[in-house]
Amino acid sequence: MSTYDVVIKNGIICTASDFYPADIGIIGEKIAAICDCIDPVHAGEIIDAEGGIVTPGGIDAHVHVDEPVKLLGDVADTMGEATRSAVAGGTTTIIAFASQDLSLTGPHALSQSVKNTTDMYSKQRLYCDYGLHMILARLEGTGTATRDILDQQLENVYQDCGVSSIKVFMTYPGLQMSDYNLLNAMYASRKNGITTMIHAENGDIVRWMTESLEEQGLLEPYYHGVSRPTIVEGEATNRAVTLARTMDNPILFVHVSSPEAIDTIRRAQTAGLKVYAETCPQYALLSDEDTKCAHGDDFAGAKNICSPPLRPEEVKQAIWRGMNNGSFTIVGSDHCAYLYSSKEKGKHNAFAKCENGRFRYIPNGMPGVCTRMPLLFDAVMRNRLSSLMKFVEINCTNPAKIYGCYPQKGGLLPGSSDADIIVWYPNDKQYDLQPEVITNDLLEHACDYTPYEGVEIKNWPRFTIARGKVVYKEGKLMHDNARGQYIRRKKSSLSSPNNAWPSEWRPAYDKK
Amino acid sequence: MSTYDVVIKNGIICTASDFYPADIGIIGEKIAAICDCIDPVHAGEIIDAEGGIVTPGGIDAHVHVDEPVKLLGDVADTMGEATRSAVAGGTTTIIAFASQDLSLTGPHALSQSVKNTTDMYSKQRLYCDYGLHMILARLEGTGTATRDILDQQLENVYQDCGVSSIKVFMTYPGLQMSDYNLLNAMYASRKNGITTMIHAENGDIVRWMTESLEEQGLLEPYYHGVSRPTIVEGEATNRAVTLARTMDNPILFVHVSSPEAIDTIRRAQTAGLKVYAETCPQYALLSDEDTKCAHGDDFAGAKNICSPPLRPEEVKQAIWRGMNNGSFTIVGSDHCAYLYSSKEKGKHNAFAKCENGRFRYIPNGMPGVCTRMPLLFDAVMRNRLSSLMKFVEINCTNPAKIYGCYPQKGGLLPGSSDADIIVWYPNDKQYDLQPEVITNDLLEHACDYTPYEGVEIKNWPRFTIARGKVVYKEGKLMHDNARGQYIRRKKSSLSSPNNAWPSEWRPAYDKK
Amino acid sequence: MSTYDVVIKNGIICTASDFYPADIGIIGEKIAAICDCIDPVHAGEIIDAEGGIVTPGGIDAHVHVDEPVKLLGDVADTMGEATRSAVAGGTTTIIAFASQDLSLTGPHALSQSVKNTTDMYSKQRLYCDYGLHMILARLEGTGTATRDILDQQLENVYQDCGVSSIKVFMTYPGLQMSDYNLLNAMYASRKNGITTMIHAENGDIVRWMTESLEEQGLLEPYYHGVSRPTIVEGEATNRAVTLARTMDNPILFVHVSSPEAIDTIRRAQTAGLKVYAETCPQYALLSDEDTKCAHGDDFAGAKNICSPPLRPEEVKQAIWRGMNNGSFTIVGSDHCAYLYSSKEKGKHNAFAKCENGRFRYIPNGMPGVCTRMPLLFDAVMRNRLSSLMKFVEINCTNPAKIYGCYPQKGGLLPGSSDADIIVWYPNDKQYDLQPEVITNDLLEHACDYTPYEGVEIKNWPRFTIARGKVVYKEGKLMHDNARGQYIRRKKSSLSSPNNAWPSEWRPAYDKK
Amino acid sequence: MSTYDVVIKNGIICTASDFYPADIGIIGEKIAAICDCIDPVHAGEIIDAEGGIVTPGGIDAHVHVDEPVKLLGDVADTMGEATRSAVAGGTTTIIAFASQDLSLTGPHALSQSVKNTTDMYSKQRLYCDYGLHMILARLEGTGTATRDILDQQLENVYQDCGVSSIKVFMTYPGLQMSDYNLLNAMYASRKNGITTMIHAENGDIVRWMTESLEEQGLLEPYYHGVSRPTIVEGEATNRAVTLARTMDNPILFVHVSSPEAIDTIRRAQTAGLKVYAETCPQYALLSDEDTKCAHGDDFAGAKNICSPPLRPEEVKQAIWRGMNNGSFTIVGSDHCAYLYSSKEKGKHNAFAKCENGRFRYIPNGMPGVCTRMPLLFDAVMRNRLSSLMKFVEINCTNPAKIYGCYPQKGGLLPGSSDADIIVWYPNDKQYDLQPEVITNDLLEHACDYTPYEGVEIKNWPRFTIARGKVVYKEGKLMHDNARGQYIRRKKSSLSSPNNAWPSEWRPAYDKK
Repeated sequence: MSTYDVVIKNGIICTASDFYPADIGIIGEKIAAICDCIDPVHAGEIIDAEGGIVTPGGIDAHVHVDEPVKLLGDVADTMGEATRSAVAGGTTTIIAFASQDLSLTGPHALSQSVKNTTDMYSKQRLYCDYGLHMILARLEGTGTATRDILDQQLENVYQDCGVSSIKVFMTYPGLQMSDYNLLNAMYASRKNGITTMIHAENGDIVRWMTESLEEQGLLEPYYHGVSRPTIVEGEATNRAVTLARTMDNPILFVHVSSPEAIDTIRRAQTAGLKVYAETCPQYALLSDEDTKCAHGDDFAGAKNICSPPLRPEEVKQAIWRGMNNGSFTIVGSDHCAYLYSSKEKGKHNAFAKCENGRFRYIPNGMPGVCTRMPLLFDAVMRNRLSSLMKFVEINCTNPAKIYGCYPQKGGLLPGSSDADIIVWYPNDKQYDLQPEVITNDLLEHACDYTPYEGVEIKNWPRFTIARGKVVYKEGKLMHDNARGQYIRRKKSSLSSPNNAWPSEWRPAYDKK
Repeated sequence: MSTYDVVIKNGIICTASDFYPADIGIIGEKIAAICDCIDPVHAGEIIDAEGGIVTPGGIDAHVHVDEPVKLLGDVADTMGEATRSAVAGGTTTIIAFASQDLSLTGPHALSQSVKNTTDMYSKQRLYCDYGLHMILARLEGTGTATRDILDQQLENVYQDCGVSSIKVFMTYPGLQMSDYNLLNAMYASRKNGITTMIHAENGDIVRWMTESLEEQGLLEPYYHGVSRPTIVEGEATNRAVTLARTMDNPILFVHVSSPEAIDTIRRAQTAGLKVYAETCPQYALLSDEDTKCAHGDDFAGAKNICSPPLRPEEVKQAIWRGMNNGSFTIVGSDHCAYLYSSKEKGKHNAFAKCENGRFRYIPNGMPGVCTRMPLLFDAVMRNRLSSLMKFVEINCTNPAKIYGCYPQKGGLLPGSSDADIIVWYPNDKQYDLQPEVITNDLLEHACDYTPYEGVEIKNWPRFTIARGKVVYKEGKLMHDNARGQYIRRKKSSLSSPNNAWPSEWRPAYDKK
Repeated sequence: MSTYDVVIKNGIICTASDFYPADIGIIGEKIAAICDCIDPVHAGEIIDAEGGIVTPGGIDAHVHVDEPVKLLGDVADTMGEATRSAVAGGTTTIIAFASQDLSLTGPHALSQSVKNTTDMYSKQRLYCDYGLHMILARLEGTGTATRDILDQQLENVYQDCGVSSIKVFMTYPGLQMSDYNLLNAMYASRKNGITTMIHAENGDIVRWMTESLEEQGLLEPYYHGVSRPTIVEGEATNRAVTLARTMDNPILFVHVSSPEAIDTIRRAQTAGLKVYAETCPQYALLSDEDTKCAHGDDFAGAKNICSPPLRPEEVKQAIWRGMNNGSFTIVGSDHCAYLYSSKEKGKHNAFAKCENGRFRYIPNGMPGVCTRMPLLFDAVMRNRLSSLMKFVEINCTNPAKIYGCYPQKGGLLPGSSDADIIVWYPNDKQYDLQPEVITNDLLEHACDYTPYEGVEIKNWPRFTIARGKVVYKEGKLMHDNARGQYIRRKKSSLSSPNNAWPSEWRPAYDKK
Repeated sequence: MSTYDVVIKNGIICTASDFYPADIGIIGEKIAAICDCIDPVHAGEIIDAEGGIVTPGGIDAHVHVDEPVKLLGDVADTMGEATRSAVAGGTTTIIAFASQDLSLTGPHALSQSVKNTTDMYSKQRLYCDYGLHMILARLEGTGTATRDILDQQLENVYQDCGVSSIKVFMTYPGLQMSDYNLLNAMYASRKNGITTMIHAENGDIVRWMTESLEEQGLLEPYYHGVSRPTIVEGEATNRAVTLARTMDNPILFVHVSSPEAIDTIRRAQTAGLKVYAETCPQYALLSDEDTKCAHGDDFAGAKNICSPPLRPEEVKQAIWRGMNNGSFTIVGSDHCAYLYSSKEKGKHNAFAKCENGRFRYIPNGMPGVCTRMPLLFDAVMRNRLSSLMKFVEINCTNPAKIYGCYPQKGGLLPGSSDADIIVWYPNDKQYDLQPEVITNDLLEHACDYTPYEGVEIKNWPRFTIARGKVVYKEGKLMHDNARGQYIRRKKSSLSSPNNAWPSEWRPAYDKK
């Protein structure tokens, strides 16, 4: 009988801090050993990674898929399709969202929202594991009761469902939360050790500018970006930092795209505040030019509409700098795909409302769960991202730590880590099967376009291994090995309050 | 017949930029000449200023007095009493507030609010001139109509009443304006060249903290300050700067007291934004220690409650630094006096609501219109304020310029300036009549206390001349010379938009 | 007998803080009165300034002319020629330099250097008054004796000659002072209330880069700028601020041209340090493009070589912003003209050394004493400079204050100020005689070019009045009225130590 | 025959990025495997780490010991004694210094200096491995030859001796390098991929202040710190950043202790410059109070004299913040011990010169190679340092990476890393043998004091394993296992130029 079910031989292991040649032994779903050299006689199956890099599987902690509660409209991908696309690009864990079902109330309202969501996904074939963040759309109660109800709901959603993160919005009609309720949300998060994720844009400015642009007849997709310039994100970021500092609550800004926001985040980190940030590949690689008409299609820019919007060309450099100097803790895809063809055919009809051409009705989002890992790996090859270790840190290890699924996910730790592993192609010789150009077909998602169509890339996952099984091999999905499941998460291992309050004021519970 | 009605001889003239010995000739209400030496034979009356400094009269552009619309409750002073106190301290123009009467609507609603206010004051004996800012409490209309209605109202209030400044609030229940409406207010201000004054504190944080402190039973006056720490002001300041930058609208922050706010203002000024700021003597001279119980009176701290609150001791230095390096454009008193004895006697009953001891109900404000000028003059003597020219700049000339009453007020300009002049005591020899210690009696206001009781001072106005007449002379009011009146103001000569928009977005009217 | 020798009627007076219509009465060399309206019967002579602006005469505190000690080589202008050019452009006082004669030693060595210089100039026809800064090239002594000798020399040069400012260099072979000696210079300056002017560029970097560029054969004039990029100035500025902070000595940076330097200066000013700065029109109006070949002349860029060098186009905006936000205290011309034709003809042979084409040998400097005032006035008309009051502040009043010749110079103060006055052309109607385009002929200097040849301007001095006499009238010099003389200066009225030391360390003299 | 010579069982492995329970198998001098669980039957020897943390051995990259060239005078420790003290505190690699022998010249001069040093140490019993940095005291040649000679010397010292780092000084008589030569050193470093270490203090200011303090009779040890306040370090840091940016050369600041320096470093890192920094435990734990007299010994403060000096109490917080937010890349001890008793007895006579009591003659330095690791581990327990992973990163992994001995040193990488491992005591139960208080006896160095005498600590290395052998076990040195040797280093894996020059200027070699 062999010691290891699978052995990955001859690869170069790369983790968030280390880079060295060694072999990996897998037993069942777990990594069992990392050794100088494992004798093939001990291996049930051998994967020869000769000359290739071996990294932990990616964790994409920002993915939107179809949900029971359709806050985001008709997105293109089911959870099954999203996980399929994920593993095709080297991501082995995604964290999606359970939106608050506003028809539910009481201490288990959030738990029930999660359960409804996991029930839906349990019927789909999943190619990798997934977790869920909780989107808070509305808070119950009035006065101090508000925070206390939420406190109870968050305690329950963690106990019942292993959900340890919430997302709140400072923009979008229907979702925009007042500063007062952001404080309530942070109070309850802090008390329960929940990670607070923040979409930071000033919704009032966006509304004002949208109305003004419409009045001027400036309706094309490009004006979506004009209606929410970088200072709109910068302002909200500064406000949220102040709220978090008031509450001494760690926070994480999602999809940061603005130089002013980065400056604010950096200043907060310099001052020792627990402020984390995510950016997305699209802000480093695309620009507002991509929201203009193309190929004779006046509306083509709509494909690349997202919020925050794609920024002017010169902002890209600030995004790369932020990744390299540590301002950005993680990279997520903000995958939120809509069928572009639906604007004619009405299928899913996500774009239907904008037949009048108003940018205000274009669904916000683009696909990205598949391309995140290859694009960032490629960035290392092009000296934009400083090292492969930094690549692993922000794409794999930090997401796991900050969202409480470390060390099960995000590392290559014998005895602790699931065998979620990517074997990349060797750099020195190009395999016949290695993709060299991105095409939509390659991405295995349900969307009918990718913003990166035709982009050249220098590497791509050769083998994607999820909990010990190869689910993607040299361009092919291995459908029979798909057995993804919901994962309960623990509390973040990165964030905890500083216990440094801005004044002698203390929330009541600290006194007790 | 003499050339001049009054000649001020032998003084040392000090303006915002100059300091030199010369004589001043007054004809009627106006300054007619400044000369090396005016022969006494040309003088109807001679005021011998030998050895004393001669400055323009002070302009206190931040004074709250009794109004027809009692947004601030029962303040102690009528306009008559406030002007009386003003001239006793060297201030010859005050700008108070006309609060928006919410029962009025339509394009002349604001004009009518102003007229009701000036009607009320026209019946009082006024010791110096006054103007009025407009307090905006609520905006009419919805969507883009909101801004267009206000646009019309502001055009009218300027045409009808000579009101060229509005004040908006980011805090206080009933007054707190949403960011959306702040943009509307700025839009209309920019279009009409109106100066936008902003009370910058994040009302949501204040509400949250107030509720939390009350829940903990922390109710004493001191906790008023705890409920609104410096970062609460810093956040709102940054937000307002962003809104103003979005709208390319000059703004002025009133009563700035927070290091974070000063930093934000300074950064904006460094970047070339039209951002102005006012501070008040109390933030430079008092501290949160003064809101604690004193002399065995548990409630004594209530006398010194204001918003923003008095700050920790170490903040004072930042306030002085801000005055000296130009971050602060002007100094106002934020005079807003309440009868402390009313807490027992119920007269005016400003303090009545707080008999339960809750800091939330303490009226916000303290007297200061009389002491502003002497305290700041004193600060020059003590090397806290850099020079007497800086003293004149921030207390006299800049308020006139920024609020559109220059050169009628704020300078000593032959042919242009009203003869509003202060003759100070000589520094080298102490006149018998010169006050050396502040007492409440000295201040001539209707309030029953001053926060500066017993404070030693190095100078005090010897003569206060208002439009050519001596209204205060060596400690005595000259009641017969009181003939203050309402002044219509022009548009600010300091502030105008940069015409530098953050993006290609433009308000509709700029296109036309 | 008339009351006033000269009366300027119907103009609009503009000072550093005020702007208003009034008449000026002059008696002898002094301003005697400013009045609403002076009856013509009182005037010996009337200058009708109808519709024109009336400002104090300009003070150009940074002018290099021919000296007994030729540290700067053969400059084109004598003091006579420089003052002639000055008044033709509205400047009525220049402060030039007396270079240290290194053959002299002892406590009166500096005084003797000054006397030799004033002796030379006393033989020339001067069109306006002048003062002298002292250039320190080398310090005598060793150890603590160094500072004590300089202390004595500075005390004497002030007592003997009325020189209250020194200039030191952080670059140039032969002039570059070590940090140790900069401290000695600051020690002695502080003790004597002398203003320390600093040329801040890191000479070591310049040397290194010059050698490297020469080795690469990059010798053209343009590479002069490449050899000293903006960070070279930024570094030296930061170093000098640290030295000044160590010594608690006020300093003034001359000819600031670098964004990094401006940031450093602004930060120091924000922190309350006594740090002042001068910039020059060329940094706001010209760029490194102007150091390239032009009109088929490969060497034409040499005309615009100066140190610090002209900067990339985008830096201009930072210079204007610095003037408007108060970072720059004054504007000087750094007039230092060389005959360009000398490169062929050898006259003055300033350019002779660079016949081999090496940028290292090009004389540093360009003409500017005449154009400074008109160019900056023009900048107000074009909304680059915020106001005419700011124009007067930085070109007239602040130079007088910081260099100790206020209120004799720099203001329009009855009884105190010399009648140094500029009457500008009316803005609304163009007089036939008003220049509209700059040509070298217009400038009345001895140099054979101006960098501003052909530049359009919106105003020009119509009358230049120096100590009561019109020396320049509608394009013509009035030679008979030229009677400029040396002025002794007092100590700066702007700068004095903060008495805030960085540690408990104190210079010895503070203990006594 | 057993698979592994040694197996460490039941510990919790902590690396720079990971934290998890696993077993380690060692074969010979190398780590061979990390496994979930290694069966004892495969182990030659078992070390039971039950409940304890297992980390890589520490790397102290800043240690001064006795050298052939005595630039630092008579330090107390031989290399043998230093390595002995190192392993007693959990450090398994030290990098000391080979000082340039100024009597040697030519292309192999530096190589010979290194060889003389390693020859000396080869005769001593070494408890762990060591490497050497090269101290540059003087550069040969003139003009561009200077840099070219050094270029050749550095190429050789790397090829001949595996030395990949140099140290240069901006202070100290005899060592202080001009900016010109710093550029030469950086040029040659950049070209050869050598890491440039910088001691950043402005030597001129230090000299000036020292002379001034002496003149005032302020001679006690405490005034050493007064003579070099934090801004002295801040200035030099900013200057070196500018030089490095000019040359596009990565640099590392050693022993950073100043808030101004940290700010400068952070700004540079934020801007994407390759700027690294080291701090030392003494700046985080001691203060200038520790340089005053103690226990009745007026001179006791001399024990804690170092440069930069110990700082005021409030600086400590900035040091911890810098470690936690990533501003500090590494922590070194700057171990440089002198026998305090030598001041009486004359042995080694390091303190002999200061019998006259002048702080200027006190030898600079204190012991620390033993205490660095335990004190920082302790800081994690006390929540000063954010995590044990951060502890490993800055004390073990980053020093190895930045100084080119990774992955041989600094990690626990099967097949790549030497078996340099620390097993710490379990946290939950206190072993009898675990030290709880620091005493000088515990430290095993040759010095007669420690600044941490009596300090309580929460952990201490239980086993120190150096290249597979236990050299320190529960308080006892295992002399027979001592077999340390010199290690050749490769080039840094952290630093490389950005290829982003401040201007179009390029050094000559970049053109080729």
